[in-house]
Amino acid sequence: MSQATIGDSEFDRDTAVTAREPGVYDAELSAGWTIIQAVNGGYLLAVLGRALADTLPHPDPISVSAYYLTASVPGPAVVRTETVRTGSTLSTGQASLYQYAEDGTEVERIRVLATYGDLDGLPDDVRTSAKPPAIPPPEHCLGTADGPAPLPGSSAIIERLDIRLDPATVGWAVGAPSGKGEMRGWFGLADGRDPDPLSLLLTVDALPPTSFELGLMGWTPTVELTTHIRCRPAPGPLRVAITTRNLAGGLLEEDAEVWDSADRLVAQSRQLAKAPRG
Amino acid sequence: MSQATIGDSEFDRDTAVTAREPGVYDAELSAGWTIIQAVNGGYLLAVLGRALADTLPHPDPISVSAYYLTASVPGPAVVRTETVRTGSTLSTGQASLYQYAEDGTEVERIRVLATYGDLDGLPDDVRTSAKPPAIPPPEHCLGTADGPAPLPGSSAIIERLDIRLDPATVGWAVGAPSGKGEMRGWFGLADGRDPDPLSLLLTVDALPPTSFELGLMGWTPTVELTTHIRCRPAPGPLRVAITTRNLAGGLLEEDAEVWDSADRLVAQSRQLAKAPRG
Repeated sequence: MSQATIGDSEFDRDTAVTAREPGVYDAELSAGWTIIQAVNGGYLLAVLGRALADTLPHPDPISVSAYYLTASVPGPAVVRTETVRTGSTLSTGQASLYQYAEDGTEVERIRVLATYGDLDGLPDDVRTSAKPPAIPPPEHCLGTADGPAPLPGSSAIIERLDIRLDPATVGWAVGAPSGKGEMRGWFGLADGRDPDPLSLLLTVDALPPTSFELGLMGWTPTVELTTHIRCRPAPGPLRVAITTRNLAGGLLEEDAEVWDSADRLVAQSRQLAKAPRG
Repeated sequence: MSQATIGDSEFDRDTAVTAREPGVYDAELSAGWTIIQAVNGGYLLAVLGRALADTLPHPDPISVSAYYLTASVPGPAVVRTETVRTGSTLSTGQASLYQYAEDGTEVERIRVLATYGDLDGLPDDVRTSAKPPAIPPPEHCLGTADGPAPLPGSSAIIERLDIRLDPATVGWAVGAPSGKGEMRGWFGLADGRDPDPLSLLLTVDALPPTSFELGLMGWTPTVELTTHIRCRPAPGPLRVAITTRNLAGGLLEEDAEVWDSADRLVAQSRQLAKAPRG
């Protein structure tokens, strides 16, 4: 199989949107990005991101805030977008993804507000005190083939991702969670497609939840997820580090950082999620 | 002057909204929460938060994501809200704050998506590795009376806040910024009103910008600000710590944590802002 490229890959085909009329897009949610019973939230975000990139005058997501309302399922969907404000360097839009109830009525799955810009047109200055996460080289990390028992239900997304987890954050897989709210690993698409700003929307929500390492197995549905794309990623593997500092009131935050092969911080995200009952 | 209380204070009067019709609220943006030429973004957020608390079936903001579109000015405003989804424990809404152009047309200032819940109805479990920031006691911090030259334009908000900054983060005030993207201090309302979830929306955006300590004086307009209210705050002073790790492409993030007098992490926020040109 030849290496997939940006624009010609399964991720690109499965996030494609078709304009039905100005600002309204048909999409087909693929079963290929599901885990257990859920369609991955980052994949859904990329579908919404594609629609907004078409609607707004600027090409790249800079900030995307998503509120997850109801659970998506594979199949047809429609994305309705609105241009909220257009400026010279940034523009802001809104988008909602809907699916259909049995009687044909639309059910809203996710609503997002987002600001887009042109990542190639930003000033060059960088002042950073952020350091890439210390993750062992990929050959010392744990991939899917090293995994434990098969998942109940779909594991389709796992076949499409090349994730290699830091051994320090996979105690959960052998029944010995570290007790720390940390998850780290290498991230790539399995077909070799390089990262771009759109695929970063998938990347920030693709690792196992930090709650696994807190000893809480189970589902952590996202309430809200905001992603800031800080730089166009260089080709090659990404490193992702996710941290949870505070679980309280049945909710936890997951702070994700994504670093590219050029050691640049390319995305930051935070989500508020419901904690598993434990 | 007797101590102001929650519900009977200048903050409460200045964030009041009056229902014009279901979901539509009139407000009067007070000049009392301006600095230089701008109406404080946290104060605006509290006005929107009041309207959403009235619209939605749940009382407390849990997650609020705001996109700042155009600059607000003191004077009349209208807030239009929409109930997006209601659930048993959480509900989600949208709100926009508008002001009026000279010809009377509405100009949108801010749009927010938010999830509300009942902070008193959440589970009690807390697992946290977060530690309160190390800030010297208030008497060793620097208040307004210790400040340097007067600001150009309005400093009205400064009179309404009791902020005492950690001396380690006020080098900027004497022309010697630390070079670190850190700002820390004690926060209270000057009239003694205790904090509540709504006033936390003000608190997360009330300290001087971290960019001052990076040696970049000037305006840092917010692009996006998401706040998670994690716990109802106990009475008494709050501690706020803001950190910027990455300034790149003319944008910087400000991560804020707010701690209450009972040493609980009561709010986390992140904003993406435009960096001053320096």
